[in-house]
Amino acid sequence: MSASPDLLAALTERLGAAHVLTAPEDVAPYLVETRGLHRGHALAVARPADAAEAAFVVARCAEARVPVVAQGGNTGLVSGGVPQGGLVLSLARLDRVRAVDPLDATITVEAGVTLADVQAAADRAGMLFPLSLASEGSCRIGGNLATNAGGTAVLAYGNARDLVLGLEVVLADGRVWNGLKALRKDNAGYDLKHLFVGSEGTLGIITAAVLKLFPKPLSRGVGFVGLADPAAALALFAHLRDRAGHDLTAFEVIPPFGLEIVLRHTPGATPPLAQAHGTYALVEFSSTRTDAPAAAALEAALAGAIEAGLVEDATLGASEAQNQALWALRENLSEVQRREGGSIKHDVSVPLSRLPKFLATATQACEAEMPGLRVCAFGHFGDGNIHFNLSQPVGMDRAAFLAQWSRFNRIVHDVVHALGGSIAAEHGIGLIKRDELTRYTDPVALDLMRRLKAALDPDGLLNPGKVVVPEGGGPPALPSS
Amino acid sequence: MSASPDLLAALTERLGAAHVLTAPEDVAPYLVETRGLHRGHALAVARPADAAEAAFVVARCAEARVPVVAQGGNTGLVSGGVPQGGLVLSLARLDRVRAVDPLDATITVEAGVTLADVQAAADRAGMLFPLSLASEGSCRIGGNLATNAGGTAVLAYGNARDLVLGLEVVLADGRVWNGLKALRKDNAGYDLKHLFVGSEGTLGIITAAVLKLFPKPLSRGVGFVGLADPAAALALFAHLRDRAGHDLTAFEVIPPFGLEIVLRHTPGATPPLAQAHGTYALVEFSSTRTDAPAAAALEAALAGAIEAGLVEDATLGASEAQNQALWALRENLSEVQRREGGSIKHDVSVPLSRLPKFLATATQACEAEMPGLRVCAFGHFGDGNIHFNLSQPVGMDRAAFLAQWSRFNRIVHDVVHALGGSIAAEHGIGLIKRDELTRYTDPVALDLMRRLKAALDPDGLLNPGKVVVPEGGGPPALPSS
Repeated sequence: MSASPDLLAALTERLGAAHVLTAPEDVAPYLVETRGLHRGHALAVARPADAAEAAFVVARCAEARVPVVAQGGNTGLVSGGVPQGGLVLSLARLDRVRAVDPLDATITVEAGVTLADVQAAADRAGMLFPLSLASEGSCRIGGNLATNAGGTAVLAYGNARDLVLGLEVVLADGRVWNGLKALRKDNAGYDLKHLFVGSEGTLGIITAAVLKLFPKPLSRGVGFVGLADPAAALALFAHLRDRAGHDLTAFEVIPPFGLEIVLRHTPGATPPLAQAHGTYALVEFSSTRTDAPAAAALEAALAGAIEAGLVEDATLGASEAQNQALWALRENLSEVQRREGGSIKHDVSVPLSRLPKFLATATQACEAEMPGLRVCAFGHFGDGNIHFNLSQPVGMDRAAFLAQWSRFNRIVHDVVHALGGSIAAEHGIGLIKRDELTRYTDPVALDLMRRLKAALDPDGLLNPGKVVVPEGGGPPALPSS
Repeated sequence: MSASPDLLAALTERLGAAHVLTAPEDVAPYLVETRGLHRGHALAVARPADAAEAAFVVARCAEARVPVVAQGGNTGLVSGGVPQGGLVLSLARLDRVRAVDPLDATITVEAGVTLADVQAAADRAGMLFPLSLASEGSCRIGGNLATNAGGTAVLAYGNARDLVLGLEVVLADGRVWNGLKALRKDNAGYDLKHLFVGSEGTLGIITAAVLKLFPKPLSRGVGFVGLADPAAALALFAHLRDRAGHDLTAFEVIPPFGLEIVLRHTPGATPPLAQAHGTYALVEFSSTRTDAPAAAALEAALAGAIEAGLVEDATLGASEAQNQALWALRENLSEVQRREGGSIKHDVSVPLSRLPKFLATATQACEAEMPGLRVCAFGHFGDGNIHFNLSQPVGMDRAAFLAQWSRFNRIVHDVVHALGGSIAAEHGIGLIKRDELTRYTDPVALDLMRRLKAALDPDGLLNPGKVVVPEGGGPPALPSS
């Protein structure tokens, strides 16, 4: 790219040499995603200090027709931040909490603040920022918003999208849209913020956001429940939801295989229930009311469920330490799968009522395809969102198993699609699911998405090759590392 | 328009003569909005029976380059449905509830179902559809979504936008986007539904939707509170929110003038409190929990507020009949303003913390502009949304007062804008606020909106002249009736 030397000189002049990285060893960490599935390449990495510098970088790249790939904490799971040429724009230095207002119940943060730091700033102000996910210590809020992150608090508080009141966004041509409003109601024209949330840096680059805060719950109750099967889990979910409403803050499922490997690989972990069951649920009630502690309500609701024959066995955390120990059984599940070899992952959702059918059909299809394969289907049952992961057969070669990634994707995604589900529930499309999106999306919807892309990024410079590609396909999608 | 005879013949052949109205007396009701502020004109009114017929109508209009103005219950307050030529597309006959699924907590309805009928269908299934507003008996859900309606339940359940899981939309060229998904999590590409919600029929025409349902609260408590001033109301709001969280389901303010005219014009209404106060709040707690009735929690929270000196006096509904009587004091406020002569209306929002300043500044500015003018600023305080209405001075000519509409808009909207608020909180832009939107919107945001309009409706055939107009302005905005 002939424009590159001039471009890099201009960026270096504005940002300082320390913040325009070109040495291979400096650039390397920005080229590979968290699981090492894909490795990209880039001219350089620019690390602006603020939104104005970020806008400067994008404007210079637009002039030079150089693509820009935004990165936050680089913890994404769909290779959405892996560059395929162009410049990596790291938002990590935009790390200021601009304002916290407990009365408005809002916090204004820059894109590079880690999710944990957003939570902590809210907490210090006596409020809750509910978004919570495994990588919260290192992921950054701009990435959470750009990917519409999910996590464990969606049931009560919604996805990342639902927590946004306003955004500041650098557009493809380097202009800045200042939409940092802190309003609960605003019908002044088209809703622009929802366009950028979840667009994975392909329509604009989020540099700051006004987010909703919530009153901190004063109490919680956590239970671990043994159930006959997913149909019983669904019945229990409805039972609890109808009694607790918004106070039902988590309903996660863990299959027997999941519990088995968590217990196997977590030092000191003990089986929460005396007997084995067909499936398990981790449930949580929370309450902000001083007169109505959550644990008592959970106990009463579970007692009713046992009486109604929905539940085989249940245990309740008797202390906050026990609550955390029960949660750890769920939280450690992602990590311990690695210890069982290769894992082919699917982040999918279906309407709640179809969860039992989805789990039965997809499990059967995958097991039939490869004897010995171990299905680990767990996650956010109450959101209809299952991490339908496949652990390799014991003793099989890891690489040989992972080479079957696309084959199992087809099987699982076909089942999801037939049930009116989504092949990308909370992790996004990125590079990994780009061609799957094209395959499973209604042509009218695809056409609309392409029109939006063309309207906001006519030269295709923002994170090219990700999410939606022009008709006829984009560049090759998957240069494996 | 030379294409009209052919167009009308084609529509008549498909829809039947009974459903393509051209006689002036048949068309007349579709030309005027609910307050009689503006009267439009149209070639005809088409009343399709279903989405396929609606798509047919739009496709034929697109071929003939004839604009299409969608109408639901025609209850909008910003003249968004008033046609300025072209065809009126009435969605009223698309009135089927396609499905109710209590397990999924979803309802699938066509655009022409009245809001009251959506609520009733949910109720029959043992669930709550929370959207609630004054015109719910006659407004239709398609219009509620197209305008992102607000109402009295936004505090706990969000705006209409937040209640949508999926949409079916007829596009400008007559194609149908089937996005009727019933998923709680879906990151498969750009979020298209949020583009159409709130776009007032200018980007596409909603023909059906999958909406969220909620568990029905088992109890509620309603209180009417006397407060020193809006600052005290704000402090009380924060006090109640922090104690009740999601169980705080309403926080509405009523000014002394509002209470005065409700009591004057409502037969049998009695003052809820013994003394007069600087302002009043109607507050409601709801609970789905059998062990924690809402009224007890409200009583305890208000007792704490009295002790803390936030509240001057308060009364609680001791029965559901009393609860309804307290609510009526708020609900009748819109209606009784008419009895006090002309009213110049503003539907605005500001960040919660700025509500006291907004109310003081805007009131002072308006009163200074016209001695004797009576400010009636009431509404959804907990959402930061005030209906800042101005009743005419006693004895002034109604028409002479209403002729000052734009002058007072400028005064009030300038205050709103300076405080980071919105000139259109829940009623939308339509025709009435179109030029105000252009005036107060950041040019970058306006450019983005125009790009979206051009991308989705390149020929400008969907509800032209509403919301966003091309640079340089649209046709004259306000032909008064």
